[in-house]
Amino acid sequence: MEFEESGIGEECGVFGCVAAGEWPTQLEVAQVLTLGLVALQHRGQESAGIVTSNGASPPTYTSHKGMGLVSTAFPPEALLKLRYGNLGICHTRYSTTGFSELQNCQPFVVDTLHGRIAVAHNGELVNARALRKKVMRHGVGLSTSSDSELITQLLALTPPMEELDTPDWVARIKNLMTETPTSYSLLVMFKDVIYAVRDPYGNRPLSIGRLVPISRLHSPGAGEEDTEGWVVSSESCSFQSIGAKYYREVLPGEIVQISRFGVKSLSIVPRPEGDLPAFCIFEYVYFARPDSIFEGQMVYTVRQRCGRQLAIEAPTDVDLVSTVPESATPAALGYAQQSGLPYTEVLCKNRYVGRTFIQPNTRLRQLGVAKKFGVLTDNFAGKRVVLIDDSIVRGNTISPIIKLLREAGATEVHIRVASPPIRFPCYMGINIPTKEELIANKPEFKDIAGYIGADSVEYLTVEGLVSAVQEGISSFQKENVSSHKEVGHCTACLTGKYPIELEW
Amino acid sequence: MEFEESGIGEECGVFGCVAAGEWPTQLEVAQVLTLGLVALQHRGQESAGIVTSNGASPPTYTSHKGMGLVSTAFPPEALLKLRYGNLGICHTRYSTTGFSELQNCQPFVVDTLHGRIAVAHNGELVNARALRKKVMRHGVGLSTSSDSELITQLLALTPPMEELDTPDWVARIKNLMTETPTSYSLLVMFKDVIYAVRDPYGNRPLSIGRLVPISRLHSPGAGEEDTEGWVVSSESCSFQSIGAKYYREVLPGEIVQISRFGVKSLSIVPRPEGDLPAFCIFEYVYFARPDSIFEGQMVYTVRQRCGRQLAIEAPTDVDLVSTVPESATPAALGYAQQSGLPYTEVLCKNRYVGRTFIQPNTRLRQLGVAKKFGVLTDNFAGKRVVLIDDSIVRGNTISPIIKLLREAGATEVHIRVASPPIRFPCYMGINIPTKEELIANKPEFKDIAGYIGADSVEYLTVEGLVSAVQEGISSFQKENVSSHKEVGHCTACLTGKYPIELEW
Amino acid sequence: MEFEESGIGEECGVFGCVAAGEWPTQLEVAQVLTLGLVALQHRGQESAGIVTSNGASPPTYTSHKGMGLVSTAFPPEALLKLRYGNLGICHTRYSTTGFSELQNCQPFVVDTLHGRIAVAHNGELVNARALRKKVMRHGVGLSTSSDSELITQLLALTPPMEELDTPDWVARIKNLMTETPTSYSLLVMFKDVIYAVRDPYGNRPLSIGRLVPISRLHSPGAGEEDTEGWVVSSESCSFQSIGAKYYREVLPGEIVQISRFGVKSLSIVPRPEGDLPAFCIFEYVYFARPDSIFEGQMVYTVRQRCGRQLAIEAPTDVDLVSTVPESATPAALGYAQQSGLPYTEVLCKNRYVGRTFIQPNTRLRQLGVAKKFGVLTDNFAGKRVVLIDDSIVRGNTISPIIKLLREAGATEVHIRVASPPIRFPCYMGINIPTKEELIANKPEFKDIAGYIGADSVEYLTVEGLVSAVQEGISSFQKENVSSHKEVGHCTACLTGKYPIELEW
Amino acid sequence: MEFEESGIGEECGVFGCVAAGEWPTQLEVAQVLTLGLVALQHRGQESAGIVTSNGASPPTYTSHKGMGLVSTAFPPEALLKLRYGNLGICHTRYSTTGFSELQNCQPFVVDTLHGRIAVAHNGELVNARALRKKVMRHGVGLSTSSDSELITQLLALTPPMEELDTPDWVARIKNLMTETPTSYSLLVMFKDVIYAVRDPYGNRPLSIGRLVPISRLHSPGAGEEDTEGWVVSSESCSFQSIGAKYYREVLPGEIVQISRFGVKSLSIVPRPEGDLPAFCIFEYVYFARPDSIFEGQMVYTVRQRCGRQLAIEAPTDVDLVSTVPESATPAALGYAQQSGLPYTEVLCKNRYVGRTFIQPNTRLRQLGVAKKFGVLTDNFAGKRVVLIDDSIVRGNTISPIIKLLREAGATEVHIRVASPPIRFPCYMGINIPTKEELIANKPEFKDIAGYIGADSVEYLTVEGLVSAVQEGISSFQKENVSSHKEVGHCTACLTGKYPIELEW
Repeated sequence: MEFEESGIGEECGVFGCVAAGEWPTQLEVAQVLTLGLVALQHRGQESAGIVTSNGASPPTYTSHKGMGLVSTAFPPEALLKLRYGNLGICHTRYSTTGFSELQNCQPFVVDTLHGRIAVAHNGELVNARALRKKVMRHGVGLSTSSDSELITQLLALTPPMEELDTPDWVARIKNLMTETPTSYSLLVMFKDVIYAVRDPYGNRPLSIGRLVPISRLHSPGAGEEDTEGWVVSSESCSFQSIGAKYYREVLPGEIVQISRFGVKSLSIVPRPEGDLPAFCIFEYVYFARPDSIFEGQMVYTVRQRCGRQLAIEAPTDVDLVSTVPESATPAALGYAQQSGLPYTEVLCKNRYVGRTFIQPNTRLRQLGVAKKFGVLTDNFAGKRVVLIDDSIVRGNTISPIIKLLREAGATEVHIRVASPPIRFPCYMGINIPTKEELIANKPEFKDIAGYIGADSVEYLTVEGLVSAVQEGISSFQKENVSSHKEVGHCTACLTGKYPIELEW
Repeated sequence: MEFEESGIGEECGVFGCVAAGEWPTQLEVAQVLTLGLVALQHRGQESAGIVTSNGASPPTYTSHKGMGLVSTAFPPEALLKLRYGNLGICHTRYSTTGFSELQNCQPFVVDTLHGRIAVAHNGELVNARALRKKVMRHGVGLSTSSDSELITQLLALTPPMEELDTPDWVARIKNLMTETPTSYSLLVMFKDVIYAVRDPYGNRPLSIGRLVPISRLHSPGAGEEDTEGWVVSSESCSFQSIGAKYYREVLPGEIVQISRFGVKSLSIVPRPEGDLPAFCIFEYVYFARPDSIFEGQMVYTVRQRCGRQLAIEAPTDVDLVSTVPESATPAALGYAQQSGLPYTEVLCKNRYVGRTFIQPNTRLRQLGVAKKFGVLTDNFAGKRVVLIDDSIVRGNTISPIIKLLREAGATEVHIRVASPPIRFPCYMGINIPTKEELIANKPEFKDIAGYIGADSVEYLTVEGLVSAVQEGISSFQKENVSSHKEVGHCTACLTGKYPIELEW
Repeated sequence: MEFEESGIGEECGVFGCVAAGEWPTQLEVAQVLTLGLVALQHRGQESAGIVTSNGASPPTYTSHKGMGLVSTAFPPEALLKLRYGNLGICHTRYSTTGFSELQNCQPFVVDTLHGRIAVAHNGELVNARALRKKVMRHGVGLSTSSDSELITQLLALTPPMEELDTPDWVARIKNLMTETPTSYSLLVMFKDVIYAVRDPYGNRPLSIGRLVPISRLHSPGAGEEDTEGWVVSSESCSFQSIGAKYYREVLPGEIVQISRFGVKSLSIVPRPEGDLPAFCIFEYVYFARPDSIFEGQMVYTVRQRCGRQLAIEAPTDVDLVSTVPESATPAALGYAQQSGLPYTEVLCKNRYVGRTFIQPNTRLRQLGVAKKFGVLTDNFAGKRVVLIDDSIVRGNTISPIIKLLREAGATEVHIRVASPPIRFPCYMGINIPTKEELIANKPEFKDIAGYIGADSVEYLTVEGLVSAVQEGISSFQKENVSSHKEVGHCTACLTGKYPIELEW
Repeated sequence: MEFEESGIGEECGVFGCVAAGEWPTQLEVAQVLTLGLVALQHRGQESAGIVTSNGASPPTYTSHKGMGLVSTAFPPEALLKLRYGNLGICHTRYSTTGFSELQNCQPFVVDTLHGRIAVAHNGELVNARALRKKVMRHGVGLSTSSDSELITQLLALTPPMEELDTPDWVARIKNLMTETPTSYSLLVMFKDVIYAVRDPYGNRPLSIGRLVPISRLHSPGAGEEDTEGWVVSSESCSFQSIGAKYYREVLPGEIVQISRFGVKSLSIVPRPEGDLPAFCIFEYVYFARPDSIFEGQMVYTVRQRCGRQLAIEAPTDVDLVSTVPESATPAALGYAQQSGLPYTEVLCKNRYVGRTFIQPNTRLRQLGVAKKFGVLTDNFAGKRVVLIDDSIVRGNTISPIIKLLREAGATEVHIRVASPPIRFPCYMGINIPTKEELIANKPEFKDIAGYIGADSVEYLTVEGLVSAVQEGISSFQKENVSSHKEVGHCTACLTGKYPIELEW
């Protein structure tokens, strides 16, 4: 099977929901969770899992996991099975390893001395290896390679080990946070409560939304009394899909308790003195859906600003600006606005290509990416084109596109990339090719234009990217909670500066 | 299951391929057919079928059919089964009826007195009912409701009925064409030949391409001697996906023979005197992929011209132009260019929504189309928006989008539709809702703006659409074959003027 | 995949049901049809199909077909779809060709000038080739290689061709029966009636049953007024599974009409003068379920009689009689009873073996049939065994079994076969290996005992078989309808004497 | 869906294989494991799993698990994936809970401080609840309810906790065995070794076999030098399916190490002084395949002896003896031999019934078990029948069978059961209905004959069963290893005397 050879991939999305008020309510929690997952599907397409709890004492947990897209993994009978949940958490997963198993699906559910807990996790523990050794030295066998199981066992083996009716999960979560600084956005469900946790560096996103009656959805004065439930999600883009209003982000280091009584901030675990937050800048550049909101600004707007900045840093003398559809479109429109050049479409995408069974070494394989794009010849034949891309990872996708455009009559093809070259691996939840595979680390990079067949290639600078991202935050910060006032972003894959010193 | 309630649907795509030269060749005909189908997937997603022939005497035919997308219907073992084909035809189907069966899948293969033939068909015979009666009166039982079976049986029962080594299929096809004037684009495979046929009115599209070595694909001088095979397709957009060069359209009424020796025009069956061609204008407006070429012009360009014409006919005093992604984008860009207003994106589409299992009557169902779109608030809050749509069928999709935009802060929302109102049914292969369901036939249409909640609604005129379509053809015609010199388009769904008098 | 290499196979089973009284009734016709099919599953495991009719004017037909066992082919949604049927016919199929397609599934449904009919068929038309030529010469294309389509088209093209409200299907069926003498047991459904037809030679079986309330099922006095419906089936064994009482057989050449008003014999088409009936003797020997009744006698009893006769014809001096489980058990018990030798089990069957994915040429493949049987060593070690088999086709199954027994300690292994050697092909619906593959036609047959490794091998004589079969009929005949009084069986595969002269 | 409502169920089967000699060898370990599982399929049909190891340092483990029968759960690609294994263990599972998940599939694989281990387990830990509490108190979270995970975590958390190159797994297994006395037959795979363990009471079976070349399979002198590999299995019936010779049983309390160098007994953990072994007597009565060997005797022979004993204890004055096919057949033949009454079949089984989608509350549901059996009327009409069954659990299966026989003409129907009444639950791995559901605990049991509609009902006595089982062991014991010389069987479900005092 021929897979789309994408460059980089997000590893996960998490989502949770608690019905508000007296249980059971009219809210179909399982349906909300499913739609929430669908809205996060771009963060992981390999498997999906939902765990619900009825919230009783002792609680009944119900779970369903499946391989593939949410629509495949959750047939009607799965939703039927989950329908008595009053709260629940769920997870969609993208595998970093070539081989995938249902067993690695999250959420992870375990029985502990204090009852059953469920954990869903987005991120990657930077000190996972040491932590695995630690729990194994304690005598625990680990049945998967997932950080979620590791987190769960770490929560379980925190003393005290007496059987308690009201175990102090918050203390255990804090303890976990002191053992591992980053990266995780975490949902821990216990009986009738979800704890939403973001690591002290805020590396992975996590936002809270409020479900209101559809009829009140867009009425500005919808008060607390209308609340039908609370949701928590890797990205706020999911809120619209389920009829929720954006409430706020979970702050770096914050532990928020979500119950049927509402949302309560329990604690903010601090970073080491002097350390800035390190929210992944590639969420803005590439991963997040353009309608998501981070740090008070819409992702689309940031991408458009990157395009404008790119036009300032790397102008071109051409006839038109275009995009590699569709992720680079906001940047391309920004570039067009800033440069005054006309925005024109030169490629159209065939949605259905991707997974056809092509034998290796056939003539059709040679066609490569050309199969995926139709060329809108009339729009650019005889013209000079600047093509905006959001990032160049391996360089093997852009090259055939340039060839296509030239052969269809473009007289010049210039490439402008709305982010800096990727040079370093990510150890915090993003799947990036090995250092050797990254085009920016290859000898050919010296003549990247020649290598990919472009007339010129220029990248946005790191400074340009950071300023495009941070420009929109300042105004927001003024009116926001104090702990959030420090702004900082992880640019490790671009600069090699990791937010904390790594063990390897 | 909640299906996307699309307004109108194409019913089919057909595709064929013949390897050139001595058989067997290096060309993987089954792979070409599969990729060709994938490129026509937008014309039908319900089922797909491929029939190949080894071209021997007598020939061995191999077929595979399956429900769903090509990628689902054609697993690797299906391609393996088909791999000895030297030529083949295929079909992708969209069902007009609610209920679908593998049995109705095309191509249709039958044994006749003269050997086995296979037929794939795009279109709908306007006099199907009378023809069915005719063949049944002859004593033939019809096992499906499909026109393809009807066509096949009509070909089979044409005299003479002696068993012949070289049956005159062309005479039989001509006979068929005199019995039914429209609409069909037809592929008939017999042993080692494909007959590509377009009805005298040219109502459905059909184009021919030439497969060349990938290395010569874009070299202008690639001569006949390079030819690796011939392909024929409902739309030329499929040619790029398989490494073929556009060759020409099959003309209205033309019978083209495609064999390993090349392409040969056998006959052109004329229309009744005075009748113009009647190529479906909605292929330009809605169905075709934007990178397809009809009558010498790219569909994208026509759509852009429609947008420009719309800006002339129905200007607006607003701050920005936007699109309902993604089919209306060329028209929106045309509108922006003509009007000088900035083109801005206001919605982003969630690719993964569509088929989740939502219980009827839930709060989530009320969200409707909102689940599918993310709102790019920052781009238009506080502004006046003109939203370009390609067509409005029932009016139930645009209404919640307008509501979304207003609630996110648009101060005015004007709708401009890049095609005229649809008022009449199509009997020639397009699935249009019943007359009563069409918004343009409802009493509410008098105040359509009020009904859908827009500040104003205006449509492109029929004249405007026809001129936008035909404007690009003239120059092309001068250099083209004589029979093609007459230009005409079917606008029956807009005007009620059908190309021929209908039996009902 | 490793398939069980069975020797011979039945090709089909047919079943029909009509609810009695005013429609709709309480009878779940679709459920009855499904269970009836399951009871005939031994006659065909490749595919299954059901067509129901609501019986209205015009009728609505609903059909579902699927590959594999009935339990796979008919998921709950299929039964749901069929639930409004007031009558229906169904079919289970075993493919004679290596390759199978859903398209060949029966019943076959076609629209004719006189309305829609559905046909299910067990058997094989001896003059199919000539009949195919005939209908094709009439101008009909045939879309499958199945006799069912051929029968349907033959019914359709019988004159008169005027559109009639009450077409004379019976005349058409009679006409069909004069065109093809054998072999078929046929169900033709039209609107609100099923015609049950057996060819004039009665080659394939067909029986009628009467559905009564479960509570009255076994009460002898259950009168006509209790009738809930009528069923018709290839074998009466299905009646018990659905709560029906055995009513009678359809006679050779008879056309029976089954409607909600009851069962009515319409006609008996005669054989050519002097010809005897030719009911397939292998239905008794091998195919039928032992609890089915043919010609007034239970199949089990006939098999037991064959075993007794075998003991008379071919006695052995051994310590015990055993069986190749499980089809030969009645004959083995008969042999034991007649000979006075103790009946002992020597093998047990592993139900789950059959379809595991074993690579060719591995050591495990060499194990062959041994994988399927467990050896009950203690029962025969040190003893002389006579093993009864029902038939030996290729000789490749019995040979490893003999080896197994010897190696586990049997001092002698004698084989007695409860039917004569198979030497000739069947052209009437049974799948028999080619003449060359039949062990009885190979040179090795001269020393068959040596070839398969037995101490001795003896077969039942043709005369012995025929007398064992016909012995039980006489008493039955006295009290039966006159046309049935002639007794005759087809022994063509044993003797080469076909009931009619064959075209090849 | 209508499931067969079986009375009691085995919960698992385990199987392992190690290739002998230098690795890699010609032995297809994955194929051997698959066939071995198929042969144990009767012990669990819900799910299946295989884990292989290449045996290297560090080892690579590969696993595949799937729901359903082995043939479904292990498609060709699964076998491909597993093909580099030089040793492996596998498991087939029957769920005691209504709901089943892939997650509970065995073998269970975990990473420990000392490397990765895999565990497969048949049985049920009598003190599971206390042990779960213990490991959770140690801080371990348990992700499943399965004893296998519990066993694995118990093995992992045994001190010492230093990271060792050569961890003392045997010491850990011994430690486990002191913590939990019964019931388990256990396979523990670590790197290049399988430890085969049977609990001190020997409650669950476990046997060892030796793989020899197929050609040498039945040659008595096949020496050690021929050994191709070693297998270990819940039942010896699997050995024939894969071409292995029976070697010996694992003894109660024994830890056997199986490696490529051969089989080595490492230790025998003793029972508390005075306790006898407690091998589950129901393995003989019901669960095991008749061709399996336990304690030196074939299961079939024991069942036959039970039938003889039953004829002595509970004779009848009837015309014939018959069986409820097929599990009761050995006992019925034993009864016939002892009593001198003729053995006759009265029922035949429809293999295909079982899982059809029957709506509840339909007339067909009322048919119940009758759907599954055909009645061989001719064999018993007008006669008095004694029907032998192996056990009566709820009494709801035998009752309709008796009714069937009477209605088909049996003048008397007597029931003789070849085991004593089941009155108590099993806590050691067998799924028995709750005490209340057992017919022997109901008030109706006083008149069981009346309740089920029989003329008389008698059961084998506990003493009769025990003597029938133990009679065959004595001679075997004389020549066998000393520790095995004590004979004892668990009859807890019949007598309430559990081998050890239970915690609840």
